[in-house]
Amino acid sequence: MVIAVDAMGGDAAPEVVVAGALEAASQVRGEIILVGPAERLERLLPAKRPPNLRVADAPQVIGMDEDPGRAVKSKPDSSLAVTVNLVRDGEADAAVSAGNSGAFMFLAQVRLRPMAHVSRPAIAVPMPGPRGARILLDAGANVDCRPRHIVEFALMGAIYAEYALGRKNPRVALLSIGEEACKGDESTRKAHELLQMPSAPVDFVGNLEGNGLLSSDVDVVVADGFVGNVVLKVTEGVAQFLLEGLRREAARSLRTRLGALLMRPALRRVKRQLDYADYGGALLLGVNGICVVSHGRSNARAICNAILVAQRAVAGGVRERLAEGLERWAATVTDSESLATQTA
Amino acid sequence: MVIAVDAMGGDAAPEVVVAGALEAASQVRGEIILVGPAERLERLLPAKRPPNLRVADAPQVIGMDEDPGRAVKSKPDSSLAVTVNLVRDGEADAAVSAGNSGAFMFLAQVRLRPMAHVSRPAIAVPMPGPRGARILLDAGANVDCRPRHIVEFALMGAIYAEYALGRKNPRVALLSIGEEACKGDESTRKAHELLQMPSAPVDFVGNLEGNGLLSSDVDVVVADGFVGNVVLKVTEGVAQFLLEGLRREAARSLRTRLGALLMRPALRRVKRQLDYADYGGALLLGVNGICVVSHGRSNARAICNAILVAQRAVAGGVRERLAEGLERWAATVTDSESLATQTA
Repeated sequence: MVIAVDAMGGDAAPEVVVAGALEAASQVRGEIILVGPAERLERLLPAKRPPNLRVADAPQVIGMDEDPGRAVKSKPDSSLAVTVNLVRDGEADAAVSAGNSGAFMFLAQVRLRPMAHVSRPAIAVPMPGPRGARILLDAGANVDCRPRHIVEFALMGAIYAEYALGRKNPRVALLSIGEEACKGDESTRKAHELLQMPSAPVDFVGNLEGNGLLSSDVDVVVADGFVGNVVLKVTEGVAQFLLEGLRREAARSLRTRLGALLMRPALRRVKRQLDYADYGGALLLGVNGICVVSHGRSNARAICNAILVAQRAVAGGVRERLAEGLERWAATVTDSESLATQTA
Repeated sequence: MVIAVDAMGGDAAPEVVVAGALEAASQVRGEIILVGPAERLERLLPAKRPPNLRVADAPQVIGMDEDPGRAVKSKPDSSLAVTVNLVRDGEADAAVSAGNSGAFMFLAQVRLRPMAHVSRPAIAVPMPGPRGARILLDAGANVDCRPRHIVEFALMGAIYAEYALGRKNPRVALLSIGEEACKGDESTRKAHELLQMPSAPVDFVGNLEGNGLLSSDVDVVVADGFVGNVVLKVTEGVAQFLLEGLRREAARSLRTRLGALLMRPALRRVKRQLDYADYGGALLLGVNGICVVSHGRSNARAICNAILVAQRAVAGGVRERLAEGLERWAATVTDSESLATQTA
């Protein structure tokens, strides 16, 4: 197994990416390829490096804020492009990057191509829950999703949850603003309708309101990529707001300062549940190759975990399972249902 | 000043509504009318009731989960309808309800009518921030908003923030998935364009990502009502998840249990920042009358605070300020800009 890592991706690249890859090298079964300006990367590596870590040269770098389309076109030898190319050319099984996520998704879709029966690949992010994680998708690969795209997300999310969370017949919910089928914007209402059809490829449990995202008993939550991305970042922001508020408020008296000190282990455990560094990266589901999209602010631990996510996805055969599930679905849909879905 | 309160609205009505109204009666300068089945309400009131609290009879009740349109039609004498009618007929200055919010908004729009230059009234909710509150709108009065509706929200939000938060030239941001103008779904991108036009009636500071909702230095955040409602509820859910997680984790050892006990004052202060009971209710901006929409799970304190929100809105002349601001905007927009806005 070979995992290609974009060494220049992320706010603190390449230093933290190299550190994360070194950390991961001792844990993965397989090889890690660090992609970026070779000389610069070699200087960051220790004299005695792990035998399963090597460097692939890529002289150009795509900045975090560059326009994806333009950057990909003008920088054919960027670390991100070369990372994805390694997967396309069969030289690596997975690509990991904390860099410009728009450019990463653009490259993944154009170079690796969407899988059969997938019109829109989607980003799947694990979210915590009281009795176990759930998968949120799409967390930002798409905007202006059509209802049928959301059905695809539901199927891909369910297959992924079955494998990654070990859930039999994952329960899939649709993020909306009320439980009734009539609630939501036009695209959500139509997606609800499609997900309730006999051909719907998942165990659809209905709409889920925002306050149930982390508390309800579901395995997969689907949404348009715009909504999913806003929600993912709001979750991050609220957690940060509360934990920082707690720190600030606790500092105000000796009593609460002491309390905070004693509570530290509990605080740390809660904090970790919503810490992206802990889950490492999100999978881009629906392209021909394993792609792990990491947070731009990833630290070394996040990069290491992202590489481990990639390893598990390759070893677990996520791509093969998705291909199989999508094929089975396509075969069972009746003509009239297919028509309804295709025009939605 | 007269405030009409739907006594039958909310999960724990009429008991908590009556309790909340009694609590508010000693604080408001003006009269409170409790609207609902008179006999039932009279039985809940103490023998010696406040002189500024009276009951108006309304025999019917609209359930929390009833279809708004159908319920309004089939129950002309519902507590909610009579509450709104009192405002329409000039017998009350404001309407407060924790009941079926869809039915409340439907009644408000049909009976009180949108103000001049407003095509879509919007729900404005205060959200906490490190250096003071900000206003989020629309928090769920609309779905499938058009770009020009979002410009209306921006103007109404800015006028409201100026008055309610005491901000001069409020800074208005657009919720999206990236800071660049090109980020977001179609409607958001177009709204960004309109908000940047010379005629735009607000100080537009650009896009805001979800993680900045509670941390960035803005006064007003605008979004489509679907997104705004999901975000509002996700905020509630994440706060609950973290605080419950903290309670559960703290219970695991003597050390952390003691810590939690000592930290209680700090925990309570942080919790209050995101507690809807503390802000009481959200204003429906853009209709001819003050309407305060409260959370269905409101307790007596929330109802009392909602009545105080209504009082401040009436006393502060929110409606008059909005009318004036909307008029000024309409007068300054050039023909070509107006055309661009109207067709968006």
